[in-house]
Amino acid sequence: MTLGAMMFFPAGGQISSWRHPDANPQGLLDFNYYKNIVQTAERGKFDLFFYADELYVWDRFESGISHANSIRPEPITLLSALAAATEHIGLAATISTTYNEPYHIARKLATLDYLSNGRAAWNVVTSQTDEEARNFGRDKHLDHTNRYERAEEFVDVTQGLWDSWEDDALLLDKESGYFADKDKLHNLQHKGNHFQVHGPLNVARPPQGYPVLVQAGASEAGKEMAAARAEVVFALVSSYSAEGLLASQKFYEDLKGRMAKFGRNRDDLKILPGIMPIIGRTEEEARERLALTESLTPPQLGLDILSHHLGQDVSSYPLDEPLPFRPDIDQYNQSKTVLKGILDLIDKGLTLRQLYERVTNKRSLAGTPEQIADIMEEWFKKGAADGFNVSFSHLPGGLDDFVNLVVPELQRRGVFRTEYTGRTLREHLGLKRPANRYAKVRV
Amino acid sequence: MTLGAMMFFPAGGQISSWRHPDANPQGLLDFNYYKNIVQTAERGKFDLFFYADELYVWDRFESGISHANSIRPEPITLLSALAAATEHIGLAATISTTYNEPYHIARKLATLDYLSNGRAAWNVVTSQTDEEARNFGRDKHLDHTNRYERAEEFVDVTQGLWDSWEDDALLLDKESGYFADKDKLHNLQHKGNHFQVHGPLNVARPPQGYPVLVQAGASEAGKEMAAARAEVVFALVSSYSAEGLLASQKFYEDLKGRMAKFGRNRDDLKILPGIMPIIGRTEEEARERLALTESLTPPQLGLDILSHHLGQDVSSYPLDEPLPFRPDIDQYNQSKTVLKGILDLIDKGLTLRQLYERVTNKRSLAGTPEQIADIMEEWFKKGAADGFNVSFSHLPGGLDDFVNLVVPELQRRGVFRTEYTGRTLREHLGLKRPANRYAKVRV
Repeated sequence: MTLGAMMFFPAGGQISSWRHPDANPQGLLDFNYYKNIVQTAERGKFDLFFYADELYVWDRFESGISHANSIRPEPITLLSALAAATEHIGLAATISTTYNEPYHIARKLATLDYLSNGRAAWNVVTSQTDEEARNFGRDKHLDHTNRYERAEEFVDVTQGLWDSWEDDALLLDKESGYFADKDKLHNLQHKGNHFQVHGPLNVARPPQGYPVLVQAGASEAGKEMAAARAEVVFALVSSYSAEGLLASQKFYEDLKGRMAKFGRNRDDLKILPGIMPIIGRTEEEARERLALTESLTPPQLGLDILSHHLGQDVSSYPLDEPLPFRPDIDQYNQSKTVLKGILDLIDKGLTLRQLYERVTNKRSLAGTPEQIADIMEEWFKKGAADGFNVSFSHLPGGLDDFVNLVVPELQRRGVFRTEYTGRTLREHLGLKRPANRYAKVRV
Repeated sequence: MTLGAMMFFPAGGQISSWRHPDANPQGLLDFNYYKNIVQTAERGKFDLFFYADELYVWDRFESGISHANSIRPEPITLLSALAAATEHIGLAATISTTYNEPYHIARKLATLDYLSNGRAAWNVVTSQTDEEARNFGRDKHLDHTNRYERAEEFVDVTQGLWDSWEDDALLLDKESGYFADKDKLHNLQHKGNHFQVHGPLNVARPPQGYPVLVQAGASEAGKEMAAARAEVVFALVSSYSAEGLLASQKFYEDLKGRMAKFGRNRDDLKILPGIMPIIGRTEEEARERLALTESLTPPQLGLDILSHHLGQDVSSYPLDEPLPFRPDIDQYNQSKTVLKGILDLIDKGLTLRQLYERVTNKRSLAGTPEQIADIMEEWFKKGAADGFNVSFSHLPGGLDDFVNLVVPELQRRGVFRTEYTGRTLREHLGLKRPANRYAKVRV
């Protein structure tokens, strides 16, 4: 079983995790806070630490400024410092293809892969909001089709740059004075719709060949891209009931089934549903902790988050009635996957209050360590998951609980490692090191 | 006296430093190599570690690919990992304003400043070559005027983003649920010729207010920008003779004299001439080491470097005659400062061979520790320097020698610190923490 430790917000899995009595919001800009967390994840033998990101302060509503956890250290900067403080755990940086240049990103990820001895991963996202566009010289966010087209080309160029040095291109021969073998250094000379990049990269090919490619999109375009390229997919989960299991099995089969047409094996991609365990030593304690976690978000903030995901302000509608309209997903230009999840709830007749409570408190699973391990084992064994991307009601306490209570239970059942056996993240995940496109041509 | 430890190329101050018998080119992509170097600089009480950068492989000539030190870890990624391995030394990242976005750079530098507890600096450059342009979707490099205009606006926007959170804007009040004080969070809403950036930044104001601003340009536009904004200037030196001292005194006075019109004090800017000491225990050993260092660059590579800086291939001209033409600096779009240095040598009647030897082996000063300290002390006391940006014939050995032999000599003379007394880089340099533009408005 593959396990990712997810930092969705720096204080935990929820926008209001920072308010948890055991959270430490004073640490959000302090290296030791993050070091402690990622070292705990490493003690728990997690495959990777997964750091989410956005490129703006969510200030569409006043509640976002007043109440939301709106500061985030920049991913590459943070993960590189953490590489120096860890030895085994993979480090996944969320980086947008919409507001970056492939040469910079190829170089940063290659550098992180070197500095960490092969532990870098890239969570490819396309960003979501007009607010982000306005921080990068545009008025509006790129439309869905265009940003996926750009994302595909971005990943192509980046991987091309990683291949620009063959694995044995560096000679470093002091005596003869030959630093590199010119026949093994290649220009990319890419000219596409979105990018023109000549190359070569000024960092040699990364230890992993390519840093591991992570993705989360579950739209049609997102699934096609994942089947073609992704090595880890972070999947959203509607619930941990039998119905949720069935939906995840269906998603799992759908995605793995698409891989053959891209010449890939099912094992080349690990599907990790999200899970936010709320752990109690007893069921009652778990229920109490769940209630505490769900009480942290002020109602106005919850309502505004719902308005955000619906793409329109719904705060003037009656709280205890169903919404009197159903947003059009085709006209929508934020995450279609998130909107689809909300539409399913609208179709079930939830009231506005029920809706925002569900949207705010997503993916949590309250129970004893055994109950949580039961669900994880069942989903893993029944073809719904290759592992999980675990988030936490608050940090560092929620992670401490998981590592101290759930990980040993999974290890006892023989479904999770007791020691790291590999050296690189690819080795933890059982993924092949990709061949270099230019070396192949020579053979 | 302020001292910077400069890593011009990862293996040392010269393009062929990697060939030095005591260099360690196998370490160029290994974190421990850099960690060892920066920890040695910290042991030597250097104010800052200064990491140079370019955004391409210099492949204009075949010798560049075959012989030059053409790989460089990406600066922010490297320095952030080094922040985790050091406690006191400042960390200066070279970042181009021509091929970046201010929102990303403001965020990365703010993050580095937090993770290092106030030790981040930014060496602002505008890039130099068409090769770099071709890695970022353009055919030609921006012209000199345009790229300085862009650089000014870039720095403006970045500093505006650092001000977008007032210093006391974060409330982090779990009880009331208030994360931030909305009256102390500001949108930049910048709309300029080169950038449109709405803000605010999603990292709070850095510990230093603004990370320290470093600059190297010595063109007219570069000097004006430095006088207006820079806090550290890295200056090129023609020689360490009496003539070189005079030229540096003139540059020093020129630059400091320009500051008053921007409302700045002379002490708000530290001018650091470059120096590459070649240290021997005796004069003879120093001369031998100098000869060794100067023998490392193959003649063809030296000639090609000269051709690069002249903007045209001169390899077909006779080696032992002066160049039969003088390039036009007004039509030139790489570093005008470097070209001007070469033109001065051409005007002195140097042959082509002498020219490329001088261009390849720049800024070195061979002598005993006492002789090197003599020059440094003289320049410091005679108004030519506030300190030095020290580079090394090879790493880590050249730095080891400097820290073990020259630093104690400077300390004995009372011109250099024996312990760090400050906590942040600003404190090491004796620079004020800038006020927040929005906080000022309120008062």
